[in-house]
Amino acid sequence: MSELLAPAWAGTGAGALVADHALLTAMLDTEAALAEAQAELGVLPETAAKAIRAVRAEDLDSQAIAAGVRETANPVVAFVAGLTAAVDPAAAEYVHRGSTSQDILDTALMLLCATTLDRVERDLLATAASLADHVRTHRDTPMAGRTLTQHAVPVTFGLKAATWLHLVLDAVERVRRVKPPVSLGGAAGTLAAYEEYAADGNAALSRESAASVLPDRVAEKLGLAPQVLPWHGIRTPIADVASALLVTTGALGKIAADVLVLARTEIGEVTEERAPGRGASSAMPQKHNPVFATLVATAARQLPPLAVVLFGSMTAEDERSSGGWHAEWQPLRDALRIAAGAAANGVRLAETLRVHPEAMAANLRLTRGAIVSERVNAVLAPKLGKAAAKRLLTEATAEAERTGADLAGLLDVSPGLLDPAGYTGLSGPLADRALARFEREERR
Amino acid sequence: MSELLAPAWAGTGAGALVADHALLTAMLDTEAALAEAQAELGVLPETAAKAIRAVRAEDLDSQAIAAGVRETANPVVAFVAGLTAAVDPAAAEYVHRGSTSQDILDTALMLLCATTLDRVERDLLATAASLADHVRTHRDTPMAGRTLTQHAVPVTFGLKAATWLHLVLDAVERVRRVKPPVSLGGAAGTLAAYEEYAADGNAALSRESAASVLPDRVAEKLGLAPQVLPWHGIRTPIADVASALLVTTGALGKIAADVLVLARTEIGEVTEERAPGRGASSAMPQKHNPVFATLVATAARQLPPLAVVLFGSMTAEDERSSGGWHAEWQPLRDALRIAAGAAANGVRLAETLRVHPEAMAANLRLTRGAIVSERVNAVLAPKLGKAAAKRLLTEATAEAERTGADLAGLLDVSPGLLDPAGYTGLSGPLADRALARFEREERR
Amino acid sequence: MSELLAPAWAGTGAGALVADHALLTAMLDTEAALAEAQAELGVLPETAAKAIRAVRAEDLDSQAIAAGVRETANPVVAFVAGLTAAVDPAAAEYVHRGSTSQDILDTALMLLCATTLDRVERDLLATAASLADHVRTHRDTPMAGRTLTQHAVPVTFGLKAATWLHLVLDAVERVRRVKPPVSLGGAAGTLAAYEEYAADGNAALSRESAASVLPDRVAEKLGLAPQVLPWHGIRTPIADVASALLVTTGALGKIAADVLVLARTEIGEVTEERAPGRGASSAMPQKHNPVFATLVATAARQLPPLAVVLFGSMTAEDERSSGGWHAEWQPLRDALRIAAGAAANGVRLAETLRVHPEAMAANLRLTRGAIVSERVNAVLAPKLGKAAAKRLLTEATAEAERTGADLAGLLDVSPGLLDPAGYTGLSGPLADRALARFEREERR
Amino acid sequence: MSELLAPAWAGTGAGALVADHALLTAMLDTEAALAEAQAELGVLPETAAKAIRAVRAEDLDSQAIAAGVRETANPVVAFVAGLTAAVDPAAAEYVHRGSTSQDILDTALMLLCATTLDRVERDLLATAASLADHVRTHRDTPMAGRTLTQHAVPVTFGLKAATWLHLVLDAVERVRRVKPPVSLGGAAGTLAAYEEYAADGNAALSRESAASVLPDRVAEKLGLAPQVLPWHGIRTPIADVASALLVTTGALGKIAADVLVLARTEIGEVTEERAPGRGASSAMPQKHNPVFATLVATAARQLPPLAVVLFGSMTAEDERSSGGWHAEWQPLRDALRIAAGAAANGVRLAETLRVHPEAMAANLRLTRGAIVSERVNAVLAPKLGKAAAKRLLTEATAEAERTGADLAGLLDVSPGLLDPAGYTGLSGPLADRALARFEREERR
Repeated sequence: MSELLAPAWAGTGAGALVADHALLTAMLDTEAALAEAQAELGVLPETAAKAIRAVRAEDLDSQAIAAGVRETANPVVAFVAGLTAAVDPAAAEYVHRGSTSQDILDTALMLLCATTLDRVERDLLATAASLADHVRTHRDTPMAGRTLTQHAVPVTFGLKAATWLHLVLDAVERVRRVKPPVSLGGAAGTLAAYEEYAADGNAALSRESAASVLPDRVAEKLGLAPQVLPWHGIRTPIADVASALLVTTGALGKIAADVLVLARTEIGEVTEERAPGRGASSAMPQKHNPVFATLVATAARQLPPLAVVLFGSMTAEDERSSGGWHAEWQPLRDALRIAAGAAANGVRLAETLRVHPEAMAANLRLTRGAIVSERVNAVLAPKLGKAAAKRLLTEATAEAERTGADLAGLLDVSPGLLDPAGYTGLSGPLADRALARFEREERR
Repeated sequence: MSELLAPAWAGTGAGALVADHALLTAMLDTEAALAEAQAELGVLPETAAKAIRAVRAEDLDSQAIAAGVRETANPVVAFVAGLTAAVDPAAAEYVHRGSTSQDILDTALMLLCATTLDRVERDLLATAASLADHVRTHRDTPMAGRTLTQHAVPVTFGLKAATWLHLVLDAVERVRRVKPPVSLGGAAGTLAAYEEYAADGNAALSRESAASVLPDRVAEKLGLAPQVLPWHGIRTPIADVASALLVTTGALGKIAADVLVLARTEIGEVTEERAPGRGASSAMPQKHNPVFATLVATAARQLPPLAVVLFGSMTAEDERSSGGWHAEWQPLRDALRIAAGAAANGVRLAETLRVHPEAMAANLRLTRGAIVSERVNAVLAPKLGKAAAKRLLTEATAEAERTGADLAGLLDVSPGLLDPAGYTGLSGPLADRALARFEREERR
Repeated sequence: MSELLAPAWAGTGAGALVADHALLTAMLDTEAALAEAQAELGVLPETAAKAIRAVRAEDLDSQAIAAGVRETANPVVAFVAGLTAAVDPAAAEYVHRGSTSQDILDTALMLLCATTLDRVERDLLATAASLADHVRTHRDTPMAGRTLTQHAVPVTFGLKAATWLHLVLDAVERVRRVKPPVSLGGAAGTLAAYEEYAADGNAALSRESAASVLPDRVAEKLGLAPQVLPWHGIRTPIADVASALLVTTGALGKIAADVLVLARTEIGEVTEERAPGRGASSAMPQKHNPVFATLVATAARQLPPLAVVLFGSMTAEDERSSGGWHAEWQPLRDALRIAAGAAANGVRLAETLRVHPEAMAANLRLTRGAIVSERVNAVLAPKLGKAAAKRLLTEATAEAERTGADLAGLLDVSPGLLDPAGYTGLSGPLADRALARFEREERR
Repeated sequence: MSELLAPAWAGTGAGALVADHALLTAMLDTEAALAEAQAELGVLPETAAKAIRAVRAEDLDSQAIAAGVRETANPVVAFVAGLTAAVDPAAAEYVHRGSTSQDILDTALMLLCATTLDRVERDLLATAASLADHVRTHRDTPMAGRTLTQHAVPVTFGLKAATWLHLVLDAVERVRRVKPPVSLGGAAGTLAAYEEYAADGNAALSRESAASVLPDRVAEKLGLAPQVLPWHGIRTPIADVASALLVTTGALGKIAADVLVLARTEIGEVTEERAPGRGASSAMPQKHNPVFATLVATAARQLPPLAVVLFGSMTAEDERSSGGWHAEWQPLRDALRIAAGAAANGVRLAETLRVHPEAMAANLRLTRGAIVSERVNAVLAPKLGKAAAKRLLTEATAEAERTGADLAGLLDVSPGLLDPAGYTGLSGPLADRALARFEREERR
């Protein structure tokens, strides 16, 4: 779990969620659940299932298992050998019965997905709660709306935070929708060996029925969703996880992108809370860098390319491919920890965000009224005609900028018409909509 | 609509769905729906709305509008100028009232998304119907299951086709879930100018209420989903479209990848239907290339990278960004036509697929029984112990391959145990599950 | 050549470089050069070569050729049919003699690469010239250096422009290094049919020699680099083009990213030149958006994902693959026109850039001296110890920011020490290095 | 260094090249080289440089440094604190003098790049040597050339291996061209603090000169290339590394893709050498999977998407960006170890490849002559006319395939004309060209 170059998730606990220890534990849980389900179906003795359940990740040699890929192209063969050596000898016979590498690894990865998505959802909700506070506090705080880097028309900080809140709730919804399924198919997805071994078992169920119900039983034990078909070659579950993670870092990345603009020295409308050492530079004593925004922005840049592999691996030949499946593992792990790291850093970003209404007000005054030229246009157009009104305003705003002349005077309108606070449109009611969505979520 | 280098969609009609003409038409529809909704709300005269509705894409100069990006960074400013010039002069005043470039372009793009997703869904269902026929016909046709390029254990072609069918239905489900929304926010997402102009209007509704209901009215007229908040800076709708398209080409790409293997000269288990000229080479008279599989495989390689931009654009600064939004347009268009092309070619791939059970049978015999060594292992393991059984089988299969010796003899088992057709596991019942899912879909 | 959603290149002429007409012309040039070289080698009559040379793109039905991909998976079979129909009947026999689809399409695409790279190089050099002017004019104009969005230490605009210049020259170097080669291999890269047909020819050369020299002769006629081996399955030439284009948009994208920051309303240190209509908004009369920076930023976001396909296609099976090769075409075309568009817009960005030293000076004063705290630290550290000095400065800068107190007073140092203009380090000499590199380039 | 899900490089030693220990060592080397160069320039005492040089990675707390990113957005601030605590107290004052985080991290990463590229080059040359042996041994071994999955015309295995060899040499060339430079700029790339501290130093050099030569001195000590300008914001060096790595995995990926086809059960023209346990399955005793080809194919799928981040980060705002720079670190590390893993596995792939000419011969006979229909066409076309000849051949090959009739008989040509071994074109001489290139390389 090398964190030194992992700003997207270092120090957030996200690494441990998908680290080798967590993966080995999930693989062991999968083998144990399989054995227990098989014991219930009479395929193997209960004592064997217990012996398998007793093995811990610490009993295995992680490095040897990893290096096994150069022998067998996946780590499961060496893992099964390690597990077989670690169980009570009487149980050795029953380890991994009827199973195949991909069953174990896919199911274990789905367990990691489930745990990580839960964590992501929890953190997104915490972020949403902080953002909702910002919406409430600053529902009517006017600030400059900015488009293509330029002051456009006024908005409120409440609306901006509502935009963020809405995005985070979009992510929550997409994360929740994902239900990682068990993966059990046997060598080529026919469940044949599971059926074959069922012959040893209890006659209460036919061999076919025993094989047929096995995946559901294992899913239930592991808290995973059931599968309809074995999905060695049907990678929609991976694509679904990818989609949810992408929306997560995309949503948080938008917040970070906005904070990085608003925190600029010249703008200063928000800052991250000061704390000793936070945002310090190795060179410049005065520095107070936006740290959490930077970390989240990093995650948002790193995740989309991983999706190329994750979606691309849907296209893989045969019952199980050479390379398509293998290429998924590391990007899936990376995507999970990057998104979980972003979610954790997003919580801190939202809760340490300090808002500076006075800077917002000062910036709103910067263009001395030109920021509401759209409004003046709407007032003058019916009188002068649309084209003439726009021309007049384009010229007057340019002249006011160049000469410092008073815009209201140049336009011969009441100065009140140029008050930015008077032209925030439906910012308030729109912010309320996002709040209402959050509150429905809270009551859920 | 340059199709010459576009094997993913050339000749399928997908290009026209998102071509300049379709886009201009959608932009005009958006302006017309906006004007009509505003007319109903008393913001402008009904005659103006009618005049705006009367303009056609042919009335506009597409090249001039396109080149407008070098003046204003988007084509809408020039489009509005063109539209203003094209309407009855009395209506010119009312064109694009209170609106902003992004409202028009986003909404128009959502219209193209809606149309294209409908087409994709229809074609996916047609593909599913052909695949379901294959499942039914070949439910019990045994063939070699292949993993890591090697014969693994037997499967049936019915199960393989069921896998494809299941994937296609996954895509249908994800495509259907997407409901492209209207996009209406005004200059910075506050609806302020829409509210401002509402002042001219009918007193039955407050200005705020008029602005508030406007987006829903426009959505209804256009057959789009409503928006909760203006989403200039909330790009989840784009991400959702991208996810659905990615699953579409991923699912179809899997079918193509399998066909490209099975159609190999040495394997010959499937071919695309012969037709004069189809699959011909410019050089080699004997050639019968898999054409539709190649075109679909092309689409599946091209789409995932586009998702990097589409998901990445969620992360864009300010009320509207410089570059983030602009970078979406072309990849969105490309993703739509690539996916629609793949869906159209997928229909042809599925319906022209010819299955050769005799080649499947011949290939199954290639390893002279070794393909069921897993089964023999399951039989011998309880007697010899798991490790000894596996060792015995590894050695015997290697010897049989090397020397041509009879495997049943080497293992001292009944030759019937080595019959591949006797070890297809639950292929049949699993295939039935996919069929049942399709039939539920059909009855829908 | 649909430009309506193509802000990265619309209106720049880049589209025409790789449009269907240009491609058909290049394919015709390839067939003609092949026939001429074969005529010289006695493989076919000179009159046939002349007849082939006489055909023009206008003589062909581009749509029919494009749709041919659904018959033969590439457009060349239909193209050859069209060409055969268009030549003098006596020459029909000799069209495409010994050749294969990929020879013609690869070579034609290399012709488009060569033309486009030339254009890109020319435009990069024009951009470099404008940037060099900025470096010279503003060699010693101090401005705030910014890191992680915050004022860091002073730099000069000369150094910033020198950074841009250096990047552009990096791009020039990488573009120049690429020498697109001819592609001639015949059906499977053995030149066998070219050899076979040589039998008809002149006895001065053996058949083998005739086939062996043919690619070089064709390359020479077309102005392309020679090939060492036929490269149907050796896609390094595509990868090399991709690398050069990526550095191009990356370099220009950096300039755009900086301009988009510096042009912000609150910063105002640079603007794009005002011109009537340029940077106008459809809604806001006062708007003066940075247009060329936005277009270049768009290109820089769109290009890297295309590289996934272009590099990824190196990995393609067999003598010629199903999908790998086909997937290259459109992304290569897109990459070429996006990079060429960025290069053209980059010229305009550099030449329309207006620099505002007074805004730079004003912003430098914003932190009232804290921007040089690194320098004060260097002065105090030897006296107070490094840790104590840094602590003192961190506290003093925070206090000055909070209270508005005079920083020099708090630190008990001479106010001159806090003059930003006195702490620009080696900005000047470093800028000179970039200028010197440019001047070497100019004299080249 | 979690290898469990890293099939692209687990067990190859590539992980250690860029692991935290290697990185910390490189960061320490950078600080030591900086201090030594400064000592030579009189900026600090030689004893301090010696004390800094004495610190080892083991003296530092890697986890604490990693977690430092949540305080300061990069690990260098905590690293410098750790280093300062670890040196002799008298030297503490002089640690990291005048430097900034990015100087240390960039330079350290360039050291890792240099080491890794050396390893990659060495392994590529070893692979090339094995491939050259294959070319020599099988220069004239005929086999089926395959295009779009179908038999096309004959080639030789020598030519196929020559294609691989040529690709590998392309990669060698591109890897060698990269010369990772030192990175030294100070807080905002002006070298100002290096200059400021030079004031303490020896008067033999002016402060400016001392700062000016410092980067070259550090580069020399570290064995890195010099920089022209500080490149915090000029990311061409990262892009150049990315390009070289992409060509590496692309080239090796092509070999793997071909091996995965040729090793199919039905084709069997090559296999990876059998060794106990190699290619074993957890389920199927008979399995002999292509392991190294799978691992290399995995690498080839994983690398291109990382390039999106690495090239994309060229576009980053300001003197140093928030997110652009940070997003590079992990993908760069990943790209290095994936490419180095692929290079190591490529060596094994090439040296364990077993070639089966008898299978090649058998497959060549599969189409009973149709594989040379191009040749027959060339013979008949001058007699019958091109179109008639092609029609005749298309019909005859189809009939022969359908009915099993003798193709030579149907066509009334000599059976010798249909001998695949007689139609390998220039396969031999072309293979020699690749060999000659390799031999030039060997003599280098």
